[in-house]
Amino acid sequence: MTDAAAARRTYSYLGPAGTFTETALGQVPEAWGQQWRPVRNVGEALADVVAGRSDAAMIAIENSVDGGVSTAQDALATMPGLRIVGEYLVPVEFVLVGRPGTKLEDVSLVSAHPVAYAQCLQWLTSTLPAHAHVPASSNVASAVGLIDGTSDADAAIAPPGILEHHELELLASDIGDNPNAVTRFVLVSRTVAAPPPTGADKTSLIAELPDDHPGALLEMLEQFATRGINLSLLASRPIGDALGRYRFVIDADGHIENERMADALLGLRRFSPKVVFLGSYPRADRALVHYPERYSDDVFVEARDWLRGLLSGEPQE
Amino acid sequence: MTDAAAARRTYSYLGPAGTFTETALGQVPEAWGQQWRPVRNVGEALADVVAGRSDAAMIAIENSVDGGVSTAQDALATMPGLRIVGEYLVPVEFVLVGRPGTKLEDVSLVSAHPVAYAQCLQWLTSTLPAHAHVPASSNVASAVGLIDGTSDADAAIAPPGILEHHELELLASDIGDNPNAVTRFVLVSRTVAAPPPTGADKTSLIAELPDDHPGALLEMLEQFATRGINLSLLASRPIGDALGRYRFVIDADGHIENERMADALLGLRRFSPKVVFLGSYPRADRALVHYPERYSDDVFVEARDWLRGLLSGEPQE
Amino acid sequence: MTDAAAARRTYSYLGPAGTFTETALGQVPEAWGQQWRPVRNVGEALADVVAGRSDAAMIAIENSVDGGVSTAQDALATMPGLRIVGEYLVPVEFVLVGRPGTKLEDVSLVSAHPVAYAQCLQWLTSTLPAHAHVPASSNVASAVGLIDGTSDADAAIAPPGILEHHELELLASDIGDNPNAVTRFVLVSRTVAAPPPTGADKTSLIAELPDDHPGALLEMLEQFATRGINLSLLASRPIGDALGRYRFVIDADGHIENERMADALLGLRRFSPKVVFLGSYPRADRALVHYPERYSDDVFVEARDWLRGLLSGEPQE
Amino acid sequence: MTDAAAARRTYSYLGPAGTFTETALGQVPEAWGQQWRPVRNVGEALADVVAGRSDAAMIAIENSVDGGVSTAQDALATMPGLRIVGEYLVPVEFVLVGRPGTKLEDVSLVSAHPVAYAQCLQWLTSTLPAHAHVPASSNVASAVGLIDGTSDADAAIAPPGILEHHELELLASDIGDNPNAVTRFVLVSRTVAAPPPTGADKTSLIAELPDDHPGALLEMLEQFATRGINLSLLASRPIGDALGRYRFVIDADGHIENERMADALLGLRRFSPKVVFLGSYPRADRALVHYPERYSDDVFVEARDWLRGLLSGEPQE
Repeated sequence: MTDAAAARRTYSYLGPAGTFTETALGQVPEAWGQQWRPVRNVGEALADVVAGRSDAAMIAIENSVDGGVSTAQDALATMPGLRIVGEYLVPVEFVLVGRPGTKLEDVSLVSAHPVAYAQCLQWLTSTLPAHAHVPASSNVASAVGLIDGTSDADAAIAPPGILEHHELELLASDIGDNPNAVTRFVLVSRTVAAPPPTGADKTSLIAELPDDHPGALLEMLEQFATRGINLSLLASRPIGDALGRYRFVIDADGHIENERMADALLGLRRFSPKVVFLGSYPRADRALVHYPERYSDDVFVEARDWLRGLLSGEPQE
Repeated sequence: MTDAAAARRTYSYLGPAGTFTETALGQVPEAWGQQWRPVRNVGEALADVVAGRSDAAMIAIENSVDGGVSTAQDALATMPGLRIVGEYLVPVEFVLVGRPGTKLEDVSLVSAHPVAYAQCLQWLTSTLPAHAHVPASSNVASAVGLIDGTSDADAAIAPPGILEHHELELLASDIGDNPNAVTRFVLVSRTVAAPPPTGADKTSLIAELPDDHPGALLEMLEQFATRGINLSLLASRPIGDALGRYRFVIDADGHIENERMADALLGLRRFSPKVVFLGSYPRADRALVHYPERYSDDVFVEARDWLRGLLSGEPQE
Repeated sequence: MTDAAAARRTYSYLGPAGTFTETALGQVPEAWGQQWRPVRNVGEALADVVAGRSDAAMIAIENSVDGGVSTAQDALATMPGLRIVGEYLVPVEFVLVGRPGTKLEDVSLVSAHPVAYAQCLQWLTSTLPAHAHVPASSNVASAVGLIDGTSDADAAIAPPGILEHHELELLASDIGDNPNAVTRFVLVSRTVAAPPPTGADKTSLIAELPDDHPGALLEMLEQFATRGINLSLLASRPIGDALGRYRFVIDADGHIENERMADALLGLRRFSPKVVFLGSYPRADRALVHYPERYSDDVFVEARDWLRGLLSGEPQE
Repeated sequence: MTDAAAARRTYSYLGPAGTFTETALGQVPEAWGQQWRPVRNVGEALADVVAGRSDAAMIAIENSVDGGVSTAQDALATMPGLRIVGEYLVPVEFVLVGRPGTKLEDVSLVSAHPVAYAQCLQWLTSTLPAHAHVPASSNVASAVGLIDGTSDADAAIAPPGILEHHELELLASDIGDNPNAVTRFVLVSRTVAAPPPTGADKTSLIAELPDDHPGALLEMLEQFATRGINLSLLASRPIGDALGRYRFVIDADGHIENERMADALLGLRRFSPKVVFLGSYPRADRALVHYPERYSDDVFVEARDWLRGLLSGEPQE
């Protein structure tokens, strides 16, 4: 083994080749030419990172139709030692494929990853009202199962690229209910300091509420609103110990090194019995974060100087 | 066919026999001795009700580990003409089963409904760290697939009752990560007036936010908080047209015929571009709703009398 | 006495002739040619109305420099059976006058109504730093006292018009600290229905907080904010039974017949242990009230129709 | 002049001897045996401190019946270089006195300081319904004027102690409307560091709102509520440049050296276009400040440590 090989970095992702996750990983220049390690579930991908088998893992975290990808959110909430370092968007398109010779009118059993299934549900309901769903483990496995005989489904939902790799009949294309559907991926590494602020950053958090009183969630949201911070994601996930107990998955506009975000994190930490900071990183869309001028770094610094003056007994101007 | 038979009611539920949904339906006295219609997905169950093929459908809406069952929530958000009329809880227990002769140490491919899979994930991760997941369409289909040859999984996650119906090897029991796990089901009919208040009621709603500004969610939650109404569920679901746009699935303590709830609904309707009222119905746990005395019906009635007096120009006491 | 005389209306106001209050009463067309009754304090003016000796009383309620006129606010809070029916603004200008022959440099004792004194304090502090203040009962009495020998002050603060009625030396003019100072007056009658909405209305209220917890005032203000209602006045007045207990004097933009205001009043009544509605009446400046479209009457009416449909079990569109 | 004389401290107060302000000054042990300087108005007292003629000034700031003493509040808002260092309470009792031989039934003109007048208004209205009010410059001057001929009033409202110093007829005693009335005084020095926290402290502030939008006051109050800080005083005072523009006089429970108060001051400073910190000082009643445990100093310190760890990239426990 050469030194060069020894220095190669390893990236885990949900395989096999052809998944949207692989497409996302292809957007990471640092990953080009490195070792890509296909795994079978999100937990395995993150465990690779925690155990040091991989340097980073690419995982789907949200898509515009199906919402938070719950397994990923729950894994990030409970596995310590991880940090999100980048965000990537992949447009989502689906086709319906069958074994050669299959006709659309013959399809009654449809194999599909549950998230893909949800994204095509309107099309399926109107086109194939009597269909049944056989869940598949990935958007590639659904189609491969038709060929290798492990699935008795009549058709499969898959990404359009599947036709380049496998001998399959195209039954319908563009079957996603939303032509603008996008899946959001994040690249996760072991805990490191955040990449420097770019002005177009996002901070991901998971927080629990102190107890089940009517205003607790309101109070948590005020930690952000009172610092001029917009939330681009707020999803509730059950903590799992009892019905009605939730943790909240939060994406907030801005970076931990922005004064307003640091102050909101302090407020959140004081308020919440458990906060997990998942990272501050550049937004995939590179859109600059806008916020009221009164929450700029300067204003925070000036206020601290003022307070210091008050404490020392200096006259105020 | 007798008149009695003609008058039988039909209930759709996620089949086949043996699912947790069937157990939930067994809790409905009005359904005993009626026609039970197994269907293959939630959309089909609800479509049965809309089309008049069934009088009601039992669907899983939330479980304490996996959170909102997204397909059900999305279907209720978008299919008009439905109303929740009852709530039922089913404790969730799982076993791992294989074909006769299988040993736990030989298992690498596990078939499981995605929700069941999520509920056993910790156990699987520690006991079978290298396993892969093959999603199944129900908690019964996972096990049946092992026997009828449609699945090449080595083992399946299923409810304990599966062993009474099928020749299977019990590999492990009580494998759910949370011994108190419960799934919440709702019974859905066509739109009708709500059943009368019992003092232990719940109101289900779906609401969109007016636009993406920092305070919109805060403002929506205030509609409830300012009327002393506790929320037992708040889940965000993507609307689906763009990343970052959500609708909220809400369960609020109380009944639409409670003055405070009616007032909150008015406030919500004025605030939100789209509100779907899913129903007011008795809570499964029959726990009385507690609220501050100042939000009692009397207080609302007295305030209206007072306002009427002001408008007419009568002297106030 | 003729019938015409018998039908004349009586208006009480703080006399004597020449006060700003008389100027305000001159702005009321209905009062022209009627009986004007000068009284010696606000309590007397309001008691005239309550007892039926007068049809209405003009009283000063706020000025832009000195704030709420406490005696008037407290009287309105505690005397039942009154209602504000109109609002009037009078620009405030002051002169310093002395007995004939007095020179400014000889002045050490200044007679002034306390409110006028406060409005000229900066001028007095810089021009006559060693002066002492002798409070007078009105802006006219201050000057009259110099002449009739009841005051040993050297000079008096009075309205410019004083020079037309009395032989006095003008020592300085335009001595008010704020060239834009204005006093706000209200016309008070016995309880009657409010005059119809004009689109440029104001509603006056007095409300107590339920108890002394950190959020009570916040919660009261939310009754208005959550209905898009701006407050043009919020003044605290001690209830008087203990330090730290306050009632709040409120002027809110809009009319009790506006749906959003009626709804806010209902919320306030439910929240507050004591609310006094003082009236809805046209603003003196006739400025149209602006509010977000979502708080228009239509929106309220539509929401009530929607709620009625839900209660009856009609399908929602 | 001896060294001892040179070292004597000077205290300004509203004279003459016999006022409630003098009683308040008598509660200050450090002032015993020092130089007491009677002055004629609050502005003069504070100007003495600013100019160095006095070391401190005792001024009335609030009483339980009449509310904020506006002149004092306005002076503190606009005169720089001052700081409140102590708080004192004086119970307020009033008698009605006349020249020897006067009978209660003969009284029609009553001399009284305006605040004292307001505190006896109910008694006067029921006992002497036709009286007129002649304002006096202090609670002593009202009575002295009867004797020295400078007032043509028939009777005066004064503290009970007045009978020890002057030959006057007692016409009625305990005429205050509220038997528990108390006036609150503060001792004001030049700007110095605050005395150390005692656990029973108060912080006085004056703040302006950023602009006239419906939620600005709400937002200011949230700066305190979100840090568990109770307000014992909130009074609005017109800024004076236009009707409807107010500054707020605030007393908050706690000390600037408490973490939660320091953090609230930072928030207030960032929010408000103008904040005047008037001081943190022990409460007159020595009542310990209670606050939720989650706002204790420890919690703030721990949160800062946590944030520091996040920024450096250390793993979180």
